[in-house]
Amino acid sequence: MSDFKAQALKYHAEPTPGKISIEISKPAETVRDLALAYSPGVAEPVRCIAETPDDVYKYTAKGNLVAVISNGSAILGLGNLGPMASKPVMEGKALLFKRFANLDSIDIEVSHRTTEEFINTVANIADTFGGINLEDIKAPECFEIEKELIKRCNIPVFHDDQHGTAIVTAAGMLNALEIQGKDIGDATIVCMGAGAAAIACMELLIKCGAKREYIYMLDTKGVIHTRRDDLNEYKKLFANNTDKRTLEDALEGADVFVGVSGPDVLPAEALKLMADKPVIFACSNPDPEIKPELAHASRSDIIMATGRSDYPNQVNNVLCFPFIFRGALDVRASVINDEMKIAAVHAIRNIAKEPVPEAVLKAAEVTALEFGPEYIIPKPMDPRLLDRVSKAVSEAAVASGVARLVP
Amino acid sequence: MSDFKAQALKYHAEPTPGKISIEISKPAETVRDLALAYSPGVAEPVRCIAETPDDVYKYTAKGNLVAVISNGSAILGLGNLGPMASKPVMEGKALLFKRFANLDSIDIEVSHRTTEEFINTVANIADTFGGINLEDIKAPECFEIEKELIKRCNIPVFHDDQHGTAIVTAAGMLNALEIQGKDIGDATIVCMGAGAAAIACMELLIKCGAKREYIYMLDTKGVIHTRRDDLNEYKKLFANNTDKRTLEDALEGADVFVGVSGPDVLPAEALKLMADKPVIFACSNPDPEIKPELAHASRSDIIMATGRSDYPNQVNNVLCFPFIFRGALDVRASVINDEMKIAAVHAIRNIAKEPVPEAVLKAAEVTALEFGPEYIIPKPMDPRLLDRVSKAVSEAAVASGVARLVP
Repeated sequence: MSDFKAQALKYHAEPTPGKISIEISKPAETVRDLALAYSPGVAEPVRCIAETPDDVYKYTAKGNLVAVISNGSAILGLGNLGPMASKPVMEGKALLFKRFANLDSIDIEVSHRTTEEFINTVANIADTFGGINLEDIKAPECFEIEKELIKRCNIPVFHDDQHGTAIVTAAGMLNALEIQGKDIGDATIVCMGAGAAAIACMELLIKCGAKREYIYMLDTKGVIHTRRDDLNEYKKLFANNTDKRTLEDALEGADVFVGVSGPDVLPAEALKLMADKPVIFACSNPDPEIKPELAHASRSDIIMATGRSDYPNQVNNVLCFPFIFRGALDVRASVINDEMKIAAVHAIRNIAKEPVPEAVLKAAEVTALEFGPEYIIPKPMDPRLLDRVSKAVSEAAVASGVARLVP
Repeated sequence: MSDFKAQALKYHAEPTPGKISIEISKPAETVRDLALAYSPGVAEPVRCIAETPDDVYKYTAKGNLVAVISNGSAILGLGNLGPMASKPVMEGKALLFKRFANLDSIDIEVSHRTTEEFINTVANIADTFGGINLEDIKAPECFEIEKELIKRCNIPVFHDDQHGTAIVTAAGMLNALEIQGKDIGDATIVCMGAGAAAIACMELLIKCGAKREYIYMLDTKGVIHTRRDDLNEYKKLFANNTDKRTLEDALEGADVFVGVSGPDVLPAEALKLMADKPVIFACSNPDPEIKPELAHASRSDIIMATGRSDYPNQVNNVLCFPFIFRGALDVRASVINDEMKIAAVHAIRNIAKEPVPEAVLKAAEVTALEFGPEYIIPKPMDPRLLDRVSKAVSEAAVASGVARLVP
């Protein structure tokens, strides 16, 4: 076992198992403290909430509590390993919510037989929380799950693997296209992969101005086109009326490549088929669709992003999910709608255009960062994200009429 | 509003809403910390758990995590106010788990239509936790719910309103009978109330030596007897072949009165019908079945307990539930069985027979406590409970073969 792997296990095991704990946030030492916290004092907030349901936000931790919920059907890049094996990831996500946005977050792992049963289970416990972050649930079930839960819950439900990825991708993409002097409305986009993240990325790029008819999405069978009869309803939305069939066909003259698929599926030679000044987002993790060294050796006019922290321009969901929930919960939004997602996109991309604080440079272990091909997305440790992204999301919630608490 | 009620609301609302928070228990500052906590480091524990499911106890917080789960159908003495209104109580219970036994505990409020749906929901999320404490669920549904969940979950499931109450009642009762010079096997017992707590108390007293045929249980229609045709399956177990019909009939010559019903239902005059040296447990909260002042004025040879902290001999579940879970989780018990419950009874009752530490006297704001009519049950703040009760429960789990981790 590598040194890093051994350290990761030790980190999780010692001195106590796991990464989160639940603590008391009020005085609880004396007999009187406990009489306020529990019987008989607790009867008062109970009566208030029974009369005025919204008082639950006033007297309980609900309003700052995000559940990270998974069935373990698509854990990281590791596949369907089931709910128990997903627990370290979900606890990790809870840790990130706290670390970056001071949200209380607890993981819930769900066992179920049918998709309907998963939906019912989550809907039945939803009142406990202020928001629900769905995580590592495989496609295409994740689409129905999210759609139904949004309908049934009156708190924000957000599948981060879809929308978190999409928001950060869109932020980076808009900046990369700006630097390359291209308009997203004219860009031909090749999307390698047709899973949850791929579809969400393309849908959000369309909402940011991309044209659906200029998108070529590929699954394991090649380009998704109108003559295929093997498409689920989600892929069908991207069926292109085209004669292109292979990745190479699709790349011919394309401006953008977005990879949300697997390692090394983009040959360096194929890059040369693309238009001038292309943008390459190779987000497969840990091994991208094309190694940055190979891509840059193949042509010098590209802007490239990956999912990795050891290359420039990391597409990292942590730039988004803590802050989109922070912003949503701050104004008690009933949903996370498109307006809020797009507000997050622009808040994130704008941060990358501004001078970088010293602390960010230090945390990222670099001496300088300047908006350009090597810096199109903020760094995960950037403290400006919390205020800026959360505020933009809150404002969009208020403006779009889904906030229940207007500051 | 009374000063105390106003303080209770303020306690719950300020400075932040609620009583518990979720915190990070591992270093999470640097880029490296986060690489261990989340991607890519987290993949290692995921792989280990996928291979060896029990490793979930090694690498996640599961083993110390107790869910407090309710549907709010029987909140304290306030009735069926629904899941949202129960949240302050469930958070309060979570606070007590932490305060007394250092268990991480989170509340989950469940909305549901049928009992089956409640059971399915809880069973589907059970893997998340190390144990499940059911709370404030009304009878008779609570019996089926607990029975089914015990069957379906491989972690301890414990309905505290039943068994916590029963364990503390039994501990106090055995001590009271000892002081009165009576044998539980000969005692005639009148049980006022036929709900969850009443039935659990009687079942546990029977396991501690009481005779079922000497028990007279009363519901709102009077004595439960074999000629009644309106009994559910749980009450039926206590149908007595008797001509007694009223509370007064039942009290005639009885040794023990256990009230788990409502305020002021035991007239002082009726007390005089009981045998010499009776034991009166008037546990209705906040107003007991008979006020201690009235009872003592009626006759001087009684030992009396209530559910209140401002009288001697408080039957308080907090003497049991933190420690029975601590003991069960310490040895990774698969259930909380009768052996463990009875071990808790004796561990609790024995503490009351020993000299009381100075700190306990101070916390209880008394100068002396000595085993006798006014001190048959330990005080909630007694620090000996944690070690003694937990250890007794762990040992009983090991001895009865339900422990999966033998120290």
